[in-house]
This record gives sequence, C-alpha cells and structure tokens, in this order.
Amino acid sequence: MEQLDNSGRRRMLASTGGIVALAGLGHVARAHAASAPAAAAPAAAGAPAAKPLPAYAAWKDADSLIVHSANTIETKRTAFGSGVITPTNRLFVRNNISPPSENIVKDPDSWKLEVSGVGKPRSFTVAELKTLGLAAVPMVLQCSGNGRAWFPSKPSGTQWTVGAAGCVIFTGVPVKAVLDAVGGMADGMVYMTGTGGEEIPAGIDAKDVMVERSVPVSAVKDAILAWEINGQPLPLAHGGPLRLVIPGYTGVNSVKYIKHLAFTKEQSPAKIQQTGYRFAPVGGKGDPTQASIWEMPPKSWINYPSDPGKTVKAGQVQISGVAMGGMSAATSIEVSVNGGKDWQKAQFVGPDLGPYAWREFVLSAKLEPGTHQLASRCTNADGKSQPEERLENNRGYINNSWRDHMVEIKVA
Amino acid sequence: MEQLDNSGRRRMLASTGGIVALAGLGHVARAHAASAPAAAAPAAAGAPAAKPLPAYAAWKDADSLIVHSANTIETKRTAFGSGVITPTNRLFVRNNISPPSENIVKDPDSWKLEVSGVGKPRSFTVAELKTLGLAAVPMVLQCSGNGRAWFPSKPSGTQWTVGAAGCVIFTGVPVKAVLDAVGGMADGMVYMTGTGGEEIPAGIDAKDVMVERSVPVSAVKDAILAWEINGQPLPLAHGGPLRLVIPGYTGVNSVKYIKHLAFTKEQSPAKIQQTGYRFAPVGGKGDPTQASIWEMPPKSWINYPSDPGKTVKAGQVQISGVAMGGMSAATSIEVSVNGGKDWQKAQFVGPDLGPYAWREFVLSAKLEPGTHQLASRCTNADGKSQPEERLENNRGYINNSWRDHMVEIKVA
Repeated sequence: MEQLDNSGRRRMLASTGGIVALAGLGHVARAHAASAPAAAAPAAAGAPAAKPLPAYAAWKDADSLIVHSANTIETKRTAFGSGVITPTNRLFVRNNISPPSENIVKDPDSWKLEVSGVGKPRSFTVAELKTLGLAAVPMVLQCSGNGRAWFPSKPSGTQWTVGAAGCVIFTGVPVKAVLDAVGGMADGMVYMTGTGGEEIPAGIDAKDVMVERSVPVSAVKDAILAWEINGQPLPLAHGGPLRLVIPGYTGVNSVKYIKHLAFTKEQSPAKIQQTGYRFAPVGGKGDPTQASIWEMPPKSWINYPSDPGKTVKAGQVQISGVAMGGMSAATSIEVSVNGGKDWQKAQFVGPDLGPYAWREFVLSAKLEPGTHQLASRCTNADGKSQPEERLENNRGYINNSWRDHMVEIKVA
Repeated sequence: MEQLDNSGRRRMLASTGGIVALAGLGHVARAHAASAPAAAAPAAAGAPAAKPLPAYAAWKDADSLIVHSANTIETKRTAFGSGVITPTNRLFVRNNISPPSENIVKDPDSWKLEVSGVGKPRSFTVAELKTLGLAAVPMVLQCSGNGRAWFPSKPSGTQWTVGAAGCVIFTGVPVKAVLDAVGGMADGMVYMTGTGGEEIPAGIDAKDVMVERSVPVSAVKDAILAWEINGQPLPLAHGGPLRLVIPGYTGVNSVKYIKHLAFTKEQSPAKIQQTGYRFAPVGGKGDPTQASIWEMPPKSWINYPSDPGKTVKAGQVQISGVAMGGMSAATSIEVSVNGGKDWQKAQFVGPDLGPYAWREFVLSAKLEPGTHQLASRCTNADGKSQPEERLENNRGYINNSWRDHMVEIKVA
C-alpha cells in the first residue's frame, strides 16, 4: 500500500556525504544536499522549504518534526527528549491512506467495533468496551520502514532515518477481555485480523487500498484495543477513536480507527497483507510466501549529541539514546565513540516500563577535539543483539543495523 | 507566601451539598453552587464564568483545567487519563509569586546556577550541568494544599480538590553528581536550600516574598536539577529552565527557576520557610518550631467514574484511579462502592514507575441502579495506610483522608 502514498514522491537519495547529512534531516533538505552543505542543515527546519503540518496533525510541535508528506511525519533525532516517553505532540505519524474525517473522534464512545470469528459474534461501542477491562501498555510504536533512508538499494517509500518511532503508553481494554465477553475465539482460528476505518475512494478495488492486517493469534496475549495515548484521548492522527495495538510488532499491524476485529483461518486478502509488507529480495516483488513484517528486532540509537549543526564542547559528554528489545526487554547496551572499533557498557537510566518499551541509556565519556562516530548496540532478554549490517530487502523494512544508525559529531 | 497570592481571593466554601458538588469543580462553579444545581456543573467548564489561562500557560489544554487564578490552575478530576503519566498540557500549575519573564526559557542552556556550601563553590550553566550526569525520575508532583477544599475549617488558600497533582517524568542531573563535581558538601551542613529566580517586587522585604525552601540533606539522595518534563524542555510554567526536583516531597520544595543551590546549617530565613508551610493548629499561626511541610504521605483517589454530570450505566463498571505511596511505593489498594462500609482489593494496572510515582488502579464492579459512594485507600511499602480522616491544620495542608476524596455517582 505504500505506493499509494509514496509513488511519485520517491526520493532518490543523492550522494550526501554520509551519516552526518542524513541524521535528523528530512527529504527536503536531502534533496538539496548537493547545493547545501551539511553544516547548514539545522536551519532547514525553519526554512521556506519545510512543509506545513496537515490539518489533522496541526496540534503537533512543528519544530520537532519533519513533514515528508501529509501522511508521513517524522520526529527529529534531536527532539526525542530524555524522558523515556515520547511526547504525543512530537510523535511520528504514518498513514497508509488518508485518515477518515475528524468527525469520528468527536464522540469517541459511540464508535463501533464488529467482532467476529468468536463464539458469539457481536458489535461493541467504545463505551461498552470500557466496561470490560483496563490496561495501560508502554511500548515502542515504530514504522516498519524506519531506517529506510540508509538502504543502499534506495527502496521507494518515505526516507525515514530514526524518527518513525516513539515510546508511548496506550490505554484500553485487553483483547483477551473482549474475547472473554464473546465466548472466546472460534475453533481453528490462526490469525487476528483488524480492519481500519478509512474511507475507500470510489472506483478502486477495496482490496487494493484497504488497511487490513493479520497477525498470528499469539499476538492476542498482550494486544489491547486502545482509546488513549499518553493519558489523552487517542487523536485521529494516531488512530482514534479506537486502535488495535500490538506490542512488539511494527506499527502497520496496529490498525487505526479499527472497525472490525476478526479471528480468521487465513490472512487478509488485502494487498497490504498479501504482497505489501513482505520481506522480499532486492529487485523482487512481495508475495505471500515471504515473511510478513510483524515482530520487531532489538535496536538502539544515540540521540544526544546528534545535531550535525552543533559542535560539541570537548571534555566530559553524556552520550544518550534509546534501546529497545523488540519482543523482549533490552537488557544491555554498549556505546562506541570510534565508529565501532571499541565498545563500552552504557547505563540504563530512568524507569523500566516493561518488555515492549524502550530504555533511555547514557554513557559518560571524555571526548577530545576532532570528529567522533558514535554508535550503540543493544541485546535483548532473548540474547538477540543488534547486528552491524541491515538485512537487505526490497522495500527497506526493519533496519536495525548499528552501523547505519551511527552518528558523526564534531568536538572542539 | 500563600497570602501574597491568595489574600483577597479567599473562597468561603458555601454549603454545596457535599461531595458531588465538590468533585472536579473550580471555585467559580462552587461560588454559584447555591443558584446552580450540581448536575449542571460540567457545563461550567465552558461557561462564560471560566477564567482564561494566563499567557505563560496558554499552551495548556483549557478544557482539562480549572483556572483558579493566574498562579493557580487545577487539573479536572475527569482529565487525568488512565495512562499513569499526566500529560504536561493537563498538569496543574501553582506559583507562589508571579513567574519570571518568558525570556529565561529562550536559551535554557545559558541559565546560571550558583552552588555554595560545598568544597569548591562555583556556578554552572545548564549546559555545564548537562555534562555531569543524566537521570529520569518518574514522580508525583503535588501541591502541599491539594485537597484543601475539604477542610471544614475553611483554610485560606486555593480550594484545590484532587487536581493540584500529577505524575510526571523529570529529566536532569542528580544533585549527587553536582556535589561530586564541587568536592562534596561542606562540613556540618544540615539542609539543602534552593532559591527561586522570581523577581522580587520593589519596596518589599525580599524575605517576605522570596521563594527559598530548605529540606533535610537526606533529600539529596534522589533529588535532581531538571531541565525536562515528560520529554520536553521544562516550560516556564513548571519551573524552566531549571528546577530543583525533590521526589516524595510536596511541590513547594521543588524550587522553580532555581538560581542558587546552597547547603546550609540553618533553614532559610525566608518567610515561606520560617512561618509558611508549617503544620500549625487550626486558628493558630505558623512558626519555626512546627513541622515543615516536606514529605508526602500515602494517598489515592478515584478518577473514573467521577463526573457529577454523567449518569453511569448500571452493570459492570471499571472503577479506576491513582494511588501514591509518598516516600515509598504504593503496594496495595482497596476500593469501596458503599462509602467505606466494605472494601475490595483493586488491581494495579500499567507500568510501575518506581517508588515516587503513582500507580493506576482498577476494580471491576457490578453497580446496581442508585447512588454509590466510591472510595479508595492505599498502603505503602513502609506499611503506612491512608487514614479515614484528614489531620486538621491551619492552612489545610497534606489532606490524604480517604473519606474526603470519596466521590458520589449516580447509576441508572
């Protein structure tokens, strides 16, 4: 489905001189990289070329964001803060097709969800769902294509660096509690399939554009139907009034404005499930035999210092960033200040919000004047570590290469 | 110092028909309680009588707040959300005197802090403090007078109900790390004294109005100097560019716009320390022999359902709220649906953010049509429980009575 959004907007990544020029810059700045030196990049945020926020996201903090398009908005690397939770007004946005009307969040309690593939199929209003249970789940929400900008194969799609991700707390009802209220899953169901409430443009085959994703029923364990994000009613930009939220899975699987939750024997016939979001070889096409983009692997990156326009003062520096374990907690984190030649153990700081959240980390290091390449790599509770190189694939999904996420800073 | 802010604004709490009328209503609504029935109260939030947000807090979510005065703004009981962390744009504000100019947060890194009473006294810019360490501390920030509206002695001061509190994540440098950088505390120091950066009006004795608070040096253990709240640069409304943050202590001790951090043998000579914020008997005056308002006790309250203008649908209801332990973690929570006659164990939900944060809790209960008085009481890791009755005192500080915080709801 990405092509709906990004065809015609494909950004060929011009030779930009590497890591510094990429870190935290939107595609507008990158498109002009040949004529504008990397050092001038931070000004681009306020430069005339910056696109405005779309109306449904006008409440966001424009200075913290890179607007790639009306449906793709990225958090700047220098705007994550160090408080573990990503402020909602700085959180990235990614829609596969245009969101529904703002009207649907005016009376959130009246939104209806159909539940099928269960003992007693029925529909629930959000008000009814609110009587069934309450859970608050801290978790990383991350676009499948976060880190795409670093693929040398130049996959089409939004050229995200690190900012199509955030750590938030979703509040809602556990899917398990909903299942309890409808007599459990019907026999033999293999997938949980969510259908988004987007309007399908006339004259188009619905299957070609609908946002309908299937995940293995094992994902029911920690999934919730959410009506709040970070303590506030879920805004349209993040899938309000109701979103299926699947901790540990990439963002596309957490279906926005969900109108139908089905337990099914087969995966959705929608294109976004059958051929989209597949781990296809470079140059190849997506097909249903390939792995679907579901679970996230361990990943980390450094946010401070990472501003290519700021020279860091020589001496003691607190190098900090975020580390996520994917399907289990991040349990250790190392930092290198020399491009991955040597590694030091960094410390986690701040609260441990559970296995699906990220941890803030810090390494106090003495940096001499010169250029330093800062890198981080983490390991999760399952013993999986962040690899040096990305796994190449046609659409540039699931980049967790520590080398790609390295940042070059100037110290004086 | 409260009298500077609240003298002349003292609200005599008219007989309003009890708990329902108080829950979540600002003083404007209460002042008109005789003529406006409690059921009409929610409309008061948007009614012409509602005061506008002051300029320094204009970015806040007006619909979630009760503006008592330019320096006292309360979160509505129905606006806390269920995501554990209180969104910054819904967080209460309480200033003892008017905040400094907005200019001081324009270049936060250049703000200067003097440190004295240490081995090598010196000043630090915020930029320099940022090289010394990093900590992210989730904690309840609560005004000493939160719950004052329920004191039958009608103490002067803002008539807060539950909303002069929130749970936030502050980020900054540990005070311990700063002490390490200045050769430690000088010998014989007993207090940590912070001085706020407010401008003192001409012609007034500085001691009468300055915000300078002393706490025992034991508070150094978990204290930080913070430049971020909930992942964003600390705004002026919450003490930016730099705030001394003392987890477990009431808000007044976390000095805003801190310009001087001193380790001292005596408590500050400022009125706010000597006679203000003392546990004085009803009818008496504050004096330095009385206990200072420092540590917070365990406390909890129900937020949902609590809207006096909404009738709750009979049947299964998720009763939820927040529970804090004060100086240690909240470890258990009970809920009563019949005014405290019977109690049931409720469940904590969502992340455990550590000893100084609050926990979200929920009890699933079947409510029959009629009127129900919902109450909660918590116990902390030190075995201290929330009492039935408040401890009477002249200024209405530290109200943690479970009976006062009870809320009456209509079920049909």
